[in-house]
Amino acid sequence: MAELAPWRSPLSRALHRNRSLAYARYAQLATVQANHRPANRTVVFRGFLEDSNTLKFVTDRRSQKVEQIAENPWGVLCWYFPKTREQFRISGKLRVITATEEDADLLRLRETTWLALSEGARSQFAWPHRGQPKSESEAAFQKSVDLSTPLEEFCLLLLVPYEVDHLELREQPHHRCCYTLQSDDIWKQQALNP
Amino acid sequence: MAELAPWRSPLSRALHRNRSLAYARYAQLATVQANHRPANRTVVFRGFLEDSNTLKFVTDRRSQKVEQIAENPWGVLCWYFPKTREQFRISGKLRVITATEEDADLLRLRETTWLALSEGARSQFAWPHRGQPKSESEAAFQKSVDLSTPLEEFCLLLLVPYEVDHLELREQPHHRCCYTLQSDDIWKQQALNP
Repeated sequence: MAELAPWRSPLSRALHRNRSLAYARYAQLATVQANHRPANRTVVFRGFLEDSNTLKFVTDRRSQKVEQIAENPWGVLCWYFPKTREQFRISGKLRVITATEEDADLLRLRETTWLALSEGARSQFAWPHRGQPKSESEAAFQKSVDLSTPLEEFCLLLLVPYEVDHLELREQPHHRCCYTLQSDDIWKQQALNP
Repeated sequence: MAELAPWRSPLSRALHRNRSLAYARYAQLATVQANHRPANRTVVFRGFLEDSNTLKFVTDRRSQKVEQIAENPWGVLCWYFPKTREQFRISGKLRVITATEEDADLLRLRETTWLALSEGARSQFAWPHRGQPKSESEAAFQKSVDLSTPLEEFCLLLLVPYEVDHLELREQPHHRCCYTLQSDDIWKQQALNP
């Protein structure tokens, strides 16, 4: 089993202290578009991959980020915790796990992640192609589909961190600490000027 | 005077309905680094430039985003409003207004924006170089400086939008609308699949 990275404990603390706010599990994930402009969207944190420091999210195969990640896998999650006034910026490589994934463990993980979603969240993967001009009929959004196994469009999205920047704003001066992955599971930790 | 863009009214409504949350004025600004990886950080919305659709923020000349913007001016602000469960993604070009700005109006605006900041916020611009290894002495953070005029490091940061994507999550199915700048002050508005 991989060791927990040193930034996991301040992050767990932040999640715990902000647990009364459902949206403390929302964060903003930036990627780069093919035209070299940035993209940014709110995503929901779905926990860590077991025995690892990899973060889990879900996405739709038809979303623009899937295309962007195929061209440029680098992403950065900016995560602000309102109650404790702190920010984590988690940089790393993104990986999309689709229905055709060859790794059996990841494919199973895609399925268990699907089953952990609410029915409402699952049914969104049966909606018409997102980002396209609005489909005329409301019926297109109310198709009755079998939600017991993952829909084709459902993807697991993994962020494998290599750098974490933690900024705490509660005190003057602020506190800032940067964690950088050196090699397998070895993280360098350094206090920075805020 | 420029006309207000059609996305200004839903954005004003969101700001109004979320006004009880101080952090509803915080949003995440993504840029692209020289190595083609994304960067992302929380910024504080400081209002609009008078008679325009340009958003105002402040930044430190020594921050990495200033370097990034000099190489690639494209940015996107991802703004999530917790109370009303809606997201605005505002894409556009960024511009940094420093002490050596040649446009007299913008230079004046830099000064008035400085004066509108709290003393605590102003004093941060006298702190040691941010992002560098932590300065030993706490005294470096407590220098007594004249804060009546903008410190050299203080910059105004402007985002001139060309596309705004508004997503509302309150209802099933969600609502999504995209606004694109066609030419001077002419915005095209289109409902999209959420």
